[in-house]
Amino acid sequence: MWRKTKIAEILGISYPIIQAGMAGGPTTPQLVAAVSEAGGLGTLGAGYMTPEQIRSAVREIRKLTDRPFAVNLFVDEPPVVLEEQLAKANQQLDRFRKELGIELGTRPSKYAESYPDQLAAVIEEKVPVFSFTFGIPSQEQMKRLQENGIVTVGTATTVREAVQLEQVGVDLIVGQGSEAGGHRGTFLAPVEHSLVGTLALVPQIVDAVQIPVIAAGGIMDGRGVAAALALGAEGAQLGTAFLACPESGAHPAQKAALLNSTDESTVLTTAFSGRTARGIRNRMITEMESHRDTIAPYPVQNALTRDIRQAAARQNKTDYMSLWAGQASRLTTTKPAADLFADLVRETEEVLRKISQ
Amino acid sequence: MWRKTKIAEILGISYPIIQAGMAGGPTTPQLVAAVSEAGGLGTLGAGYMTPEQIRSAVREIRKLTDRPFAVNLFVDEPPVVLEEQLAKANQQLDRFRKELGIELGTRPSKYAESYPDQLAAVIEEKVPVFSFTFGIPSQEQMKRLQENGIVTVGTATTVREAVQLEQVGVDLIVGQGSEAGGHRGTFLAPVEHSLVGTLALVPQIVDAVQIPVIAAGGIMDGRGVAAALALGAEGAQLGTAFLACPESGAHPAQKAALLNSTDESTVLTTAFSGRTARGIRNRMITEMESHRDTIAPYPVQNALTRDIRQAAARQNKTDYMSLWAGQASRLTTTKPAADLFADLVRETEEVLRKISQ
Repeated sequence: MWRKTKIAEILGISYPIIQAGMAGGPTTPQLVAAVSEAGGLGTLGAGYMTPEQIRSAVREIRKLTDRPFAVNLFVDEPPVVLEEQLAKANQQLDRFRKELGIELGTRPSKYAESYPDQLAAVIEEKVPVFSFTFGIPSQEQMKRLQENGIVTVGTATTVREAVQLEQVGVDLIVGQGSEAGGHRGTFLAPVEHSLVGTLALVPQIVDAVQIPVIAAGGIMDGRGVAAALALGAEGAQLGTAFLACPESGAHPAQKAALLNSTDESTVLTTAFSGRTARGIRNRMITEMESHRDTIAPYPVQNALTRDIRQAAARQNKTDYMSLWAGQASRLTTTKPAADLFADLVRETEEVLRKISQ
Repeated sequence: MWRKTKIAEILGISYPIIQAGMAGGPTTPQLVAAVSEAGGLGTLGAGYMTPEQIRSAVREIRKLTDRPFAVNLFVDEPPVVLEEQLAKANQQLDRFRKELGIELGTRPSKYAESYPDQLAAVIEEKVPVFSFTFGIPSQEQMKRLQENGIVTVGTATTVREAVQLEQVGVDLIVGQGSEAGGHRGTFLAPVEHSLVGTLALVPQIVDAVQIPVIAAGGIMDGRGVAAALALGAEGAQLGTAFLACPESGAHPAQKAALLNSTDESTVLTTAFSGRTARGIRNRMITEMESHRDTIAPYPVQNALTRDIRQAAARQNKTDYMSLWAGQASRLTTTKPAADLFADLVRETEEVLRKISQ
């Protein structure tokens, strides 16, 4: 029975289908709880949240469901901020600020939340599952997570990354194929060496590690979930698929952009955050392609573009929004998360029945 | 029964597994015939062959098997050769020629074989299946193919390309995901908008057309074939998987490079042919990345680098070879084609049984 994979057992869920932890607003407590209530694993994308915001969201999720859920963080070092870089990046970004009629030359008071402080909140709250990307927790952090009975899920974009995650003792690995929307999880290889399609990546990771693997990248429906299982994964993680659900906190204009997208719509960019991510091509991405040398490294660029993205959201201007989306975004639907989840399960079973006949 | 897809019926084969038509030597009549004899569809990659070479190879295949097989061509316009481009490209390529000790400043007598003449040979020989890439045959050519009872298989890298192929009346569509080795088949969108992973691309093409779809890109074993079926494809096309077979005409050094590759090894390049293709990163690719402006368009660059690639092959120097490979090249094996094919069938059935339990 495909539902009874080791992953479902380890995570304590009914179906090995995970809603990805998309940072920046989409993963409301309502979305996370709806997926977990439906029998999957909802994930709070908490990379940009303060420890207090994480605590508050976790408590809200717990009011809505008593099923397991995950919190996802960016495992990262404190940012290095160079004055020269700030000036150069801001000078370029001021073009967009002018167009939006907002103050020029942003100087953020903070460039990123402290990952150790965020992690402390996750551990204090005894969140059932901790998933992460961009790196690997320290030995000490892994030990504290394990002592608190928290299941750990790391993100790998290459075989080498998967092997390293297994070595530090994570319970599960997400293999993130190049189709995936949002940020690349890459932490070892140069990102341009780490853009392997899900269908090619997953079997290679499965062969290289002993622990169970979850496939991610381009999965939108039961066909994708069944393909993930065929490739040797024991579960599937879907992000974009949940973005246009009514429970999702994604901006209405982003939801509309997803529904109007095609297979040719997305592109990899560092323009918004300084880290490579996949989203729907828009004016800001296209124009920044000629000014790549002005882009500050993550998370500095991310902090510098925040005012632009926020103003764009208020003014409903997709030209300046980060419209994160995977390569199958045209398959997005607006169903409530519970309905979407039920359809995923039903479709997966139909596909498995059909192809095995 | 997965074997009895419409594709297997249309092609007259036992299993819907196709060996891709890789131009430039790998697809010997022995390899093509071995795959067809095993119950799949072998394909002669004839893009660089003269009409006479095609006729001769087709006759040799027919001596080895009476089962259906395909010939694959590049559907392309006659090349436009600009003196200035020639000089610029040659100047850069002379660096490599010096290192290899061969004559500088090549001036090929011919830049590409005539596609209409190649097609005439395919039709005269009444080849059972004609597959193609880089474009679409004319209405007149499609008519002649159909009148001669030749099954046509077009290559799409986007939904728009698939829809256009269906409109001109092809029988089957290969959906080529970004994982695929060798040349991108892209003919409508800019290639950088057409790099969609197989797992994301195939369901979108399946939804957009009525005719059956064959998945290609990153498929190396039964897991990949089963995933292709899960995604809604009715067959799978594998290229890299057959490259290291003893019957393959690939250079021994390329076979060794495949066997030693990892998921991080391949890269997209225009250095060898002027058209984007995926191969194992080597010195020539890396160095040409800083000299992209010197690269002539396809097929001119291809003709200009031929002497370099041939000298590299003679001297066994992989630094200058086009080591075409898909993103799962580390899964390559050296089994004879018949054994590999039997394993593909057995593995596919095992995977389908396992995931549907």
